[in-house]
Amino acid sequence: MKYEDRPIPTLQSPHDVLVHIKQTGICGSDVHFFIDGYIGENYVKEPMVLGHESSGVIAEVGSAVTTLKKGDSVSLEPGVPCRRCIRCKEGKYNLCSTVVFAASPPTHGTLSKYYALPEDFCYLLPKEMSLEEGALVEPTSVAVHIVKQADVKPGQSVVVFGAGPVGLLCCAIAKVFGATQIIAVDIQQSRLDFAARYAATGTYMSSKTSAQENATRLVREHNLGAGADVAIDASGAEVSVQTAIHVLRPGGTYVQGGMGGNEITFPIMAMCVKELNVRGSFRYGCGDYDLAINLITSGRVSVKELITGRVAFREAEQAFTDVKAGKGIKTMIAGVED
Amino acid sequence: MKYEDRPIPTLQSPHDVLVHIKQTGICGSDVHFFIDGYIGENYVKEPMVLGHESSGVIAEVGSAVTTLKKGDSVSLEPGVPCRRCIRCKEGKYNLCSTVVFAASPPTHGTLSKYYALPEDFCYLLPKEMSLEEGALVEPTSVAVHIVKQADVKPGQSVVVFGAGPVGLLCCAIAKVFGATQIIAVDIQQSRLDFAARYAATGTYMSSKTSAQENATRLVREHNLGAGADVAIDASGAEVSVQTAIHVLRPGGTYVQGGMGGNEITFPIMAMCVKELNVRGSFRYGCGDYDLAINLITSGRVSVKELITGRVAFREAEQAFTDVKAGKGIKTMIAGVED
Amino acid sequence: MKYEDRPIPTLQSPHDVLVHIKQTGICGSDVHFFIDGYIGENYVKEPMVLGHESSGVIAEVGSAVTTLKKGDSVSLEPGVPCRRCIRCKEGKYNLCSTVVFAASPPTHGTLSKYYALPEDFCYLLPKEMSLEEGALVEPTSVAVHIVKQADVKPGQSVVVFGAGPVGLLCCAIAKVFGATQIIAVDIQQSRLDFAARYAATGTYMSSKTSAQENATRLVREHNLGAGADVAIDASGAEVSVQTAIHVLRPGGTYVQGGMGGNEITFPIMAMCVKELNVRGSFRYGCGDYDLAINLITSGRVSVKELITGRVAFREAEQAFTDVKAGKGIKTMIAGVED
Amino acid sequence: MKYEDRPIPTLQSPHDVLVHIKQTGICGSDVHFFIDGYIGENYVKEPMVLGHESSGVIAEVGSAVTTLKKGDSVSLEPGVPCRRCIRCKEGKYNLCSTVVFAASPPTHGTLSKYYALPEDFCYLLPKEMSLEEGALVEPTSVAVHIVKQADVKPGQSVVVFGAGPVGLLCCAIAKVFGATQIIAVDIQQSRLDFAARYAATGTYMSSKTSAQENATRLVREHNLGAGADVAIDASGAEVSVQTAIHVLRPGGTYVQGGMGGNEITFPIMAMCVKELNVRGSFRYGCGDYDLAINLITSGRVSVKELITGRVAFREAEQAFTDVKAGKGIKTMIAGVED
Repeated sequence: MKYEDRPIPTLQSPHDVLVHIKQTGICGSDVHFFIDGYIGENYVKEPMVLGHESSGVIAEVGSAVTTLKKGDSVSLEPGVPCRRCIRCKEGKYNLCSTVVFAASPPTHGTLSKYYALPEDFCYLLPKEMSLEEGALVEPTSVAVHIVKQADVKPGQSVVVFGAGPVGLLCCAIAKVFGATQIIAVDIQQSRLDFAARYAATGTYMSSKTSAQENATRLVREHNLGAGADVAIDASGAEVSVQTAIHVLRPGGTYVQGGMGGNEITFPIMAMCVKELNVRGSFRYGCGDYDLAINLITSGRVSVKELITGRVAFREAEQAFTDVKAGKGIKTMIAGVED
Repeated sequence: MKYEDRPIPTLQSPHDVLVHIKQTGICGSDVHFFIDGYIGENYVKEPMVLGHESSGVIAEVGSAVTTLKKGDSVSLEPGVPCRRCIRCKEGKYNLCSTVVFAASPPTHGTLSKYYALPEDFCYLLPKEMSLEEGALVEPTSVAVHIVKQADVKPGQSVVVFGAGPVGLLCCAIAKVFGATQIIAVDIQQSRLDFAARYAATGTYMSSKTSAQENATRLVREHNLGAGADVAIDASGAEVSVQTAIHVLRPGGTYVQGGMGGNEITFPIMAMCVKELNVRGSFRYGCGDYDLAINLITSGRVSVKELITGRVAFREAEQAFTDVKAGKGIKTMIAGVED
Repeated sequence: MKYEDRPIPTLQSPHDVLVHIKQTGICGSDVHFFIDGYIGENYVKEPMVLGHESSGVIAEVGSAVTTLKKGDSVSLEPGVPCRRCIRCKEGKYNLCSTVVFAASPPTHGTLSKYYALPEDFCYLLPKEMSLEEGALVEPTSVAVHIVKQADVKPGQSVVVFGAGPVGLLCCAIAKVFGATQIIAVDIQQSRLDFAARYAATGTYMSSKTSAQENATRLVREHNLGAGADVAIDASGAEVSVQTAIHVLRPGGTYVQGGMGGNEITFPIMAMCVKELNVRGSFRYGCGDYDLAINLITSGRVSVKELITGRVAFREAEQAFTDVKAGKGIKTMIAGVED
Repeated sequence: MKYEDRPIPTLQSPHDVLVHIKQTGICGSDVHFFIDGYIGENYVKEPMVLGHESSGVIAEVGSAVTTLKKGDSVSLEPGVPCRRCIRCKEGKYNLCSTVVFAASPPTHGTLSKYYALPEDFCYLLPKEMSLEEGALVEPTSVAVHIVKQADVKPGQSVVVFGAGPVGLLCCAIAKVFGATQIIAVDIQQSRLDFAARYAATGTYMSSKTSAQENATRLVREHNLGAGADVAIDASGAEVSVQTAIHVLRPGGTYVQGGMGGNEITFPIMAMCVKELNVRGSFRYGCGDYDLAINLITSGRVSVKELITGRVAFREAEQAFTDVKAGKGIKTMIAGVED
């Protein structure tokens, strides 16, 4: 890892803007690329700038830009799709196969002084929102997308596996979607305590018995009757997925939010006879950033509480070390000063 | 196994009818109960009448029955739900936890002279439809439900794993739903040949390589571009499920129709990053019998072609032996004569 | 109108319960039957007991009842469907053509000492909920159903026409569903003031200009951009329907909740080129009572605030007069004492 | 109206192609602009080239074009959206407010020698498809979009009002979507006869009684029970819309395809108590052209049968006169020769 002087990006289109990056959060995928050099089939082959959870201030605007001007504070949506393929045109641009996504090889990330992207992937921050909060719109949008995929409805019960940043945000977003019972599941008591203060209505500490026994006990302790309406995995752990399938009622919905191994042992018969809806959730799509900003601005979701560390740009490595060690929830990296 | 004289059922409600059973098909689940004595958690504890794919003639009607009369030919929907629980009232009666289902322990099946059930679970056969076809409305409804769960749309590509009775019917139903490409997958050439004559637009013989290699080859051979829109498993085989997940395009839909082991090794990361919709399909629900009868009557789905054997009631054991041996596609058992 | 001694209903099925009615609210449809003698095609031909918004205490239970016992406080869902037709079985029992609905001719209503109905249409009141609130579960369910038909999503803008009981409840329910902007529209300032205190985030006083001008002004005053995401009519007034269609953005959703004349002048070209979704909402269906009780119990919707009058059973006529005169919001009629 | 030499368009982007127009069909909206000079709020203020149903041959490709080359035959999708607004990104680009649509003022149409548009709005014609058929992909896509909006499912009954080109195509597409009963309604016997030969399973001649009586008679004559599942208006006539609402069963779906007056008298109470889904349909969106080409190529929809006249480019005015006079179904205008 090294710090280097890099050229200022030039605007590729009259619709583009140049952003002076001010705050960046670090997430698990950054750490994977940093430590392991790959995620799934995605390998880092050349030195690459990391970072994709960022906010900043507009430094320059293209000639066709109408809604942003120099000096505006913005949150960056870091994946720009092609806009021309069937996935883009049917409203699922997160599934575009030629998306250019910050810090996904071979595209450089946002941990530099400047980053250029199209106007419509830059979101003006309301004046009530800080640049730190603006950077955390990204993980909030991940959680918004997961909860949308789960199609959470008012009055439902939702069980969330994993009380890290995304799991916690899923609890908060599920509440906004009207869920009545939100049970956070983890293996660390301190995380469950945080979840209970933050947004969960109940918690469950996984025990070392079978997935089926954990599910039975969770349902009984939280009076979920025939099972939960919705289960979300934000942990990536095999046992969480298995427990989630067993915890659901007939006709319930499961969403895979967390990334873990390529393959797991999966209770497919339970899925089949309960006619579950099992869905993946990948990044975020149309409207997710707008809703995330709306919820943070209106105070319905708090991201400030998630910030447990702050480092200067030159100390960025510390942020990666913190995430890897599971220390705190979110460490923010300040941008390069002028 | 034995044949015995049993009491004629009495009508439990003025809405009930008594049916003189005339034709019964045998499926894999009957054989499981016959040979193994259980399916999943469902154990045969007392001697039990088997059979649930039946047609017959109305022998008696309750006082509130208005749409059926003595002598009418009918197809029997063998699962009667409670009509009062949340699943029944929300339109998913196949998920009713107190359903009374023929030949699912401890409920006796339809392989007797008479069977009683409510008027609205008995479907009048149009005069164009034979009693043999009437018995095969049941497996046709299984396939209708699977294809509905898959939400097949006109113009889509559908890959069906397993070319047994349900897989073949899924091919035929997918065509009715407007699918343009329907690829049947199996490990027996004779079954693939049958599928190609019956309803598939293409076939694929699974090879002994990895699921991912099979998927890649299937997609290439059939020009499926980024992958199939829909994949259906009607085999229950682990490798089929795995291949199905890899064969799908981003945003595609997978339906588990066949029953196999309780757990399998599942490529969950592929499901997650492609944001697949994975669903179970269990029995059949509202409108499935109506549509199956409609399709058979109008000639859009042929069930006659699936009948490869016929035995008298006293030779019923032969039908079970045939299914177990994978001999032919469907063996029909004639009802007890007067 | 008269008071008379009537026979105590006998239970028709072992699943039925007998309820001693304790509280009843009056709504516009009761008044229509009382004053005009009909609604739409529905004529009162024989003397009929009115009332269908009721709560009470269980006086007797049938032999198959398992979840209720004598003395339990319950809210009554006043329409019991046939459970056997296609609409019932597909999950839309509110559209059952042979539903037996309290105070819809020729079925008597709930304004008597006792009323009998099936266990699953009686909802146990949590101990936090009063019998008055229990009676108001009915109009709350009407609003729940309207907002479900409108498919309100978090972050959306919703315009509600008519600030009577149902319109106010629609505002409150829309908030639960996550709507960010909720604009109440009426022609009385006092009602708008109530709406603003109760649940609306903004109000709009209709002026006597054209529907299109009102729509343009409403959109501009409330910064709705290309228009509102959702519009709900809870007034039944022709000009409200017209304004609602013009107030919507392309792709928006309109729900007709209020009942007015049989025919109106409708801006169909605007509906067509904006590809609006226009839906009716009729009574309530599966899960609506459960959600209404859940929301009232958890304090997310307040019905107490809507009660503006209370009369004894012998003074019931006063409640009808109040509603007809538009006096207050809800007048409650106490049940007959022992 | 005049013929003039116009400059050859230059490609605006490396993704654009230049098409030499070969065939153009004329529809009602072209005639409106030609005769009346406006449609709805859309006024022709400057001399404008008409035409938007066209096919042609690629004359030039931009540097980023990968799927088309000079000499390829293509069908043109004549509306190019901005790709950047919320409507575009959520998958409803037909609702883009800044779409550039051929022959919609102030944009010139396709009735010239050359027309330029982006690669992804040009569809390669399979070799089985003629250029005449290629031009008729446009009205076929209009019908595809209408039937998708109607969400027609296998086994359903569909009533189509208006047996002009779009109504006839709606009948054919409804059949592809699996509809069992397709009733064409018109006031000319010759059109009904054509519809019956083409794709309808039944016909109904509107009589001069009330909409409600027509609906009752239509339902009775065609054994539609509680009413049709789906009704589509492709006529724009007020009485058709009214009849359509009354012809539907509870929970049915109505789609407004035809354009008529801005306002009509609408039976809103019937819509409300039957909880109908009423939707507009506007042009076509993602996947509609692909499906239309797929259906024409596979022979499931025949457009050749709809061509009842052919004129040379210099005789184009005849085509407009024919449509205005309701003469024949489709008149094709050949392109300018080299």
